Amino acid sequence: MSQSSSDRILAALRDWIASAPAGARLPSTRALVAQFEASPVTVQKALKTLINAGAIEARPGIGTFVRTVRAARPNDYGWQTAALGAPQFQGASSLTALRTTPNNVIALHSGYPDKELLPARLVRAAFSRAARSEVAVQRSPTTGLPELQAWFSAELGALTPAGVTPPADRDVVVLPGSQSGLSSLFRALVGAGRPMLIESPSYWGAMLAAAQVGVKLVPIPSGPHGPDAAELDRAFAQTGARAFYAQPNFANPTGGQWSAELSDRVLEIVREHGAFLIEDDWAHDFGIAAPPTPIAARDDSGHVVYIRSLTKSVSPAVRIAGLIARGPALDRIVADTQAQSMYVSGALQAVALDVVTQPGWGTHLRSLRQQLADRRDLLVAGLREHAPTAHIEAIPRGGLNLWVRLPDDTNVAALARDCEARGVMIAAGDAWFPAEPTGRYLRLNYSGPNPGAFPEAARVIGEALGA
Amino acid sequence: MSQSSSDRILAALRDWIASAPAGARLPSTRALVAQFEASPVTVQKALKTLINAGAIEARPGIGTFVRTVRAARPNDYGWQTAALGAPQFQGASSLTALRTTPNNVIALHSGYPDKELLPARLVRAAFSRAARSEVAVQRSPTTGLPELQAWFSAELGALTPAGVTPPADRDVVVLPGSQSGLSSLFRALVGAGRPMLIESPSYWGAMLAAAQVGVKLVPIPSGPHGPDAAELDRAFAQTGARAFYAQPNFANPTGGQWSAELSDRVLEIVREHGAFLIEDDWAHDFGIAAPPTPIAARDDSGHVVYIRSLTKSVSPAVRIAGLIARGPALDRIVADTQAQSMYVSGALQAVALDVVTQPGWGTHLRSLRQQLADRRDLLVAGLREHAPTAHIEAIPRGGLNLWVRLPDDTNVAALARDCEARGVMIAAGDAWFPAEPTGRYLRLNYSGPNPGAFPEAARVIGEALGA
Repeated sequence: MSQSSSDRILAALRDWIASAPAGARLPSTRALVAQFEASPVTVQKALKTLINAGAIEARPGIGTFVRTVRAARPNDYGWQTAALGAPQFQGASSLTALRTTPNNVIALHSGYPDKELLPARLVRAAFSRAARSEVAVQRSPTTGLPELQAWFSAELGALTPAGVTPPADRDVVVLPGSQSGLSSLFRALVGAGRPMLIESPSYWGAMLAAAQVGVKLVPIPSGPHGPDAAELDRAFAQTGARAFYAQPNFANPTGGQWSAELSDRVLEIVREHGAFLIEDDWAHDFGIAAPPTPIAARDDSGHVVYIRSLTKSVSPAVRIAGLIARGPALDRIVADTQAQSMYVSGALQAVALDVVTQPGWGTHLRSLRQQLADRRDLLVAGLREHAPTAHIEAIPRGGLNLWVRLPDDTNVAALARDCEARGVMIAAGDAWFPAEPTGRYLRLNYSGPNPGAFPEAARVIGEALGA
Repeated sequence: MSQSSSDRILAALRDWIASAPAGARLPSTRALVAQFEASPVTVQKALKTLINAGAIEARPGIGTFVRTVRAARPNDYGWQTAALGAPQFQGASSLTALRTTPNNVIALHSGYPDKELLPARLVRAAFSRAARSEVAVQRSPTTGLPELQAWFSAELGALTPAGVTPPADRDVVVLPGSQSGLSSLFRALVGAGRPMLIESPSYWGAMLAAAQVGVKLVPIPSGPHGPDAAELDRAFAQTGARAFYAQPNFANPTGGQWSAELSDRVLEIVREHGAFLIEDDWAHDFGIAAPPTPIAARDDSGHVVYIRSLTKSVSPAVRIAGLIARGPALDRIVADTQAQSMYVSGALQAVALDVVTQPGWGTHLRSLRQQLADRRDLLVAGLREHAPTAHIEAIPRGGLNLWVRLPDDTNVAALARDCEARGVMIAAGDAWFPAEPTGRYLRLNYSGPNPGAFPEAARVIGEALGA
């Protein structure tokens, strides 16, 4: 039986490849067509078979090459161990809150709101407008687009009471997301080897940034009603720390919001100790029962350094945050952000500004508030019904998370694995503690996809808890 | 003479404001209309006059308020001096290369290509497509969009010779610009207090990032033909450094491209000393006489860590860079980039990938090469005619800059001021030296706006040099 034309070419090429050095370039398709007196389609078919078999590889626009397969060399990179030395910090080995999951899973672990909670129409329209505008091909000033600086300062200024000087536009630095902002803040205001007070529990991303900078964290007990002011005062005095990182509104993970009295007391303590309050207003757009009341609005003495992100409320693709600081601290921060990232994409800044200045933004925020309330209540009801041993310390008045205390003998890691095996992703609370956890906790995010499945998720958690 | 209605309202409001506390809220426009029995237009006119005079301020959607003017308190932020302590690094006080300028100035100081050299049509189309795609509202994986990782690895892989294993897609980390990448690289591979070798002169942004990290720079004499290999070898031995930052192709500022022999020798030295070569391929898309030949393409032992930016060739609004590393070094870098920025906007990644995979991208690069050649030659000819004492050490074979040596008795700072007064912005070469400058230099960027004015700029420089 005569070989097909394609098989004939295949056999000839296999022979050629077997004797060619790895990386050798095959003749062009045109040359092969001439050599084998075959059609281009036939030649292409033979090449495709060899590509699929891993014998050759096509590099588009360059040519086709014998695949470079080398013997495994297990110790290739061993020399790097000495060159790198000991790690300067322990990175996050598993970022639970950043894990992506298949669609059929009920995801309560993520830190990011589902697409249905985003102003998608406004974001798309803003990207379209940016495409037609000069911002698509221009460099932004290093501290940000002046219009976006003005918006951030006006937002905080609108909450500034009489007698307090509102921030100026020049006090604002636009940053490529709040994670980058926290790194810069911790480097600029604290620095490697120096102490910083932090609520416990607190946001793991802040702890990660602090670890990267080499800041020594001093945990202050905190909860749904905010930190213990007496402990805060004592910790400042004992450690000589000059900064306190906190989330006074809808803290991640507890959902806590500080009372006006506590806010005043903390501001007083911070001032007494000549220190900074680094106020992370991450959930500014996620108030449910109450609007956020940033402490920064009540300070014009430069003691409160304020950071607000738009990434979670506008779109995860629009990584934009605004930082507000005054005095030499601002200069120190700007020096760090310039060395770190030079400037932020003007296109992303324009998109963010476009979204938050549309009439639809206010409408969106009102609808978002209702959706978050409904989702929160649905999950709370489900847990109360199906997982009675899971104790919700306080119903959050804003934010995206429930902070749930479990019985002290719970193995949280095993629980998370059990739930995942049953299709429910949850986050063990340990990651939110800067030191040893003081109890067994879960953080359950109610802003993920498919809230209709929350009762089912609660049932799974309850079963896994052995209720 | 009777007052106009507007004047009457103005006078009454001025009285009211004079006795009101700072920050007090004015009655609503409706209330003022009723009070003064005037039209809304008249009331608005009076308010506008007071706003322009700085007496009151409008906060859109909130109300109008007596402007909060407080007595200047010169020592308000003095307490920060103690809280901040000594600066951990000296930031850039004047980033000459980032200065924006009025349109009537001839700008040879900037580091960024003019809009006419950008693929603006492709960028706009890519932003439009991103607006309609899911990337506008989705979170990107932490190391980047897989398709963009694959593109960066294929680009380097296409230049990989036979016998060398090309990089895998998983060896790529997508970063929000190369400045951010350099910071992460220096932190991850070198670390505070440890030495790193660097060409002298070299890119000031890299020196700024190194200063921020606290890396101790060890300058290696370099020039249009690359570094002195014997000095490099000696410096590794003497300092115990484990990393060398370099730009082997079209270095900023010298425009130098290393010969194949020098590249081989440097790779050999780096391997002998168990060290990393941090290869900054910033001008990959700016080859003029020659294509770039990255050393990373010839190394599969993990000794070369490679970074390539798309920001300058795609658009300054598309801050995207790709980093390629292997082995534990990659893990160390990923840990740092995650702590620093978590992930990069998927929309910007999609825009970058869209642009560089369009058929028009190749066309654009060919036209760009011709434009850069013409611009370079025009500026060289102008200098030769009008500024004969300005010595061009080598005509760059790629990149965006001429590196010009001036007579040793030139006061370069005064020269830059003189030129600026005559409408020509130039950058004194001092900023590109990690230690004392070894001569008087200018860096002249030939990718700025209005190349037709290059001969005029050369005339101004010649005159200022007293030619």
